[in-house]
Amino acid sequence: MSSALYDILGLGNAIVDVIAQADDDFLVREKLAKGSMALIDQPRADYLFETMGLVTTISGGSAANTIVGAASLGSRTAFIGKVKSDELGKAFAHDIRAIGVHFGTAPATDGPATARCLVLVTPDGERTMNTFLGACQGLAAADVDADVVRSSKIIYLEGYLWDPPGAKEAFIKAADIAHAADRKVVLTLSDSFCVDRYRAEFLNLIQNGTVDILFANQHELKALYETADLDTALAALRQENILGVVTCSEQGSLVVDRHQTLAFPAHPIDRLVDTTGAGDLFAAGFLAGLARSADHAICARLGALAAAEVIQHVGARPQHSLIDLAKQNGLI
Amino acid sequence: MSSALYDILGLGNAIVDVIAQADDDFLVREKLAKGSMALIDQPRADYLFETMGLVTTISGGSAANTIVGAASLGSRTAFIGKVKSDELGKAFAHDIRAIGVHFGTAPATDGPATARCLVLVTPDGERTMNTFLGACQGLAAADVDADVVRSSKIIYLEGYLWDPPGAKEAFIKAADIAHAADRKVVLTLSDSFCVDRYRAEFLNLIQNGTVDILFANQHELKALYETADLDTALAALRQENILGVVTCSEQGSLVVDRHQTLAFPAHPIDRLVDTTGAGDLFAAGFLAGLARSADHAICARLGALAAAEVIQHVGARPQHSLIDLAKQNGLI
Repeated sequence: MSSALYDILGLGNAIVDVIAQADDDFLVREKLAKGSMALIDQPRADYLFETMGLVTTISGGSAANTIVGAASLGSRTAFIGKVKSDELGKAFAHDIRAIGVHFGTAPATDGPATARCLVLVTPDGERTMNTFLGACQGLAAADVDADVVRSSKIIYLEGYLWDPPGAKEAFIKAADIAHAADRKVVLTLSDSFCVDRYRAEFLNLIQNGTVDILFANQHELKALYETADLDTALAALRQENILGVVTCSEQGSLVVDRHQTLAFPAHPIDRLVDTTGAGDLFAAGFLAGLARSADHAICARLGALAAAEVIQHVGARPQHSLIDLAKQNGLI
Repeated sequence: MSSALYDILGLGNAIVDVIAQADDDFLVREKLAKGSMALIDQPRADYLFETMGLVTTISGGSAANTIVGAASLGSRTAFIGKVKSDELGKAFAHDIRAIGVHFGTAPATDGPATARCLVLVTPDGERTMNTFLGACQGLAAADVDADVVRSSKIIYLEGYLWDPPGAKEAFIKAADIAHAADRKVVLTLSDSFCVDRYRAEFLNLIQNGTVDILFANQHELKALYETADLDTALAALRQENILGVVTCSEQGSLVVDRHQTLAFPAHPIDRLVDTTGAGDLFAAGFLAGLARSADHAICARLGALAAAEVIQHVGARPQHSLIDLAKQNGLI
């Protein structure tokens, strides 16, 4: 294994979040399943945008949020994802580079607009997401820069990449190059509805050695193993030959391998504002710890700290320096 | 005076805020005067955008913020301002209509892009603003819909309208139509640097009967009367034949006419996050009270309440229903 230029490379959908407050009646009226991510087409995106309240626009994208979080924790990071060369695309590129992430994917110059996720935040802080994939549908294997993959200790791939047509080829290409260079490949299951769409393929990735580390929340893990019981799902996960990291909201996280299951607490918060990005930022902290060769307890505490920061404000990117927070908490 | 369809009509620059956190060193390095609003051209806007951190994009514009705040307090409102038919322009139009404001100004189909204000928020919550006026430079007297002006009890005009070339003609046209229909005309001084640019013209508007009510913060009022002493400025204001409303940050507000000066406290807050929009929302509350024929004490308390909401989160538009807050506080 050669020395690494980057700690973590993320591959994911490059999405800008368009966030509005909504009440539960709005979700019912528009037939939106609370807490889920639904894929929508352009007319539906236009309709929902017209219907929703005052919007705040902030760069998002699950793996992109994770990479930005890791960068804020001092990791050397890179990202591959597809925007269009429009206003939202420029904002996405600006934001990910502003925190020092290497982002070299060429923007599309024609075709659909930069992807957007219409996020409705209810008074309980839950977010309900509606994603128009737009330019992400153009992500292809050719966008995977083999040198960048080989130069990264950890390759982080989001399950959402199974949605756009060409992205799974990009995913497989990146994983193959990474393993040839003796790098770690990490998959996040993204969303329980996403797991329902691609369960067999995700299980295959886990069982055929493509994936070394799996991130999931409890709902996604239960969806993966088609059970309503978390312990049953955890028992199934323990049989896989991977490291599993399972988040359970305010109950904290579990780190699972064939030998043991370790539980770690959530980080205390003052006020829950918007859970968007909680899982993404937990992964950011955990992976930033792994890249520093920290033990799993420190990794889980870094993850909890990063998640706690992001759920106390609107938007899925940190608003405070996470490395400063980590130092104040004695984790770095 | 015929019956009014709208309580308050705002006329102002239609601007989208692009907000980032910044430290004081950044302001020094980029030679930015903390707390001020500077006008910038496109290359400078592009440079600052590249240089600033992660951005949050939220509709803004001083008078537009005020009108949205008044709408959130239950006022019937309208707005006149110029965007381009681009992404930011659509977001601006969406946001102002989402809360029920009548916004009928035709967007520009060519020429410069929708205006943006690059807002840098320092850790003390102060905002430093850099405005690229873009499409606002196309606002002209022809955009003033005489029927809408005649149908509004109160016409609210921002001093910033003196910056784009044709907007002051729109301002004067609106004021003339309003007075002919026996409506009240309100001016906000906007910014102490704006007062420095147009002092003689603003004094003339106040002294020639164009303006019935003046909003200013203490810095703007001192700039208007070219004094470092607030009492001197207040004494000068008392000589004008208008109602003056002066905000003094956490010291509360003063309501001034020829006969008396009344002082009202600020509304308590938990945590100062971003002062952007404080003055705009104070005006929203005060005018919403006036439109309901409330006395000045209630108007000032409504203003203080609306300002307190907006400074506790990022962005200059309310995130909670102001009429609900007003009811909880027994003001409506």
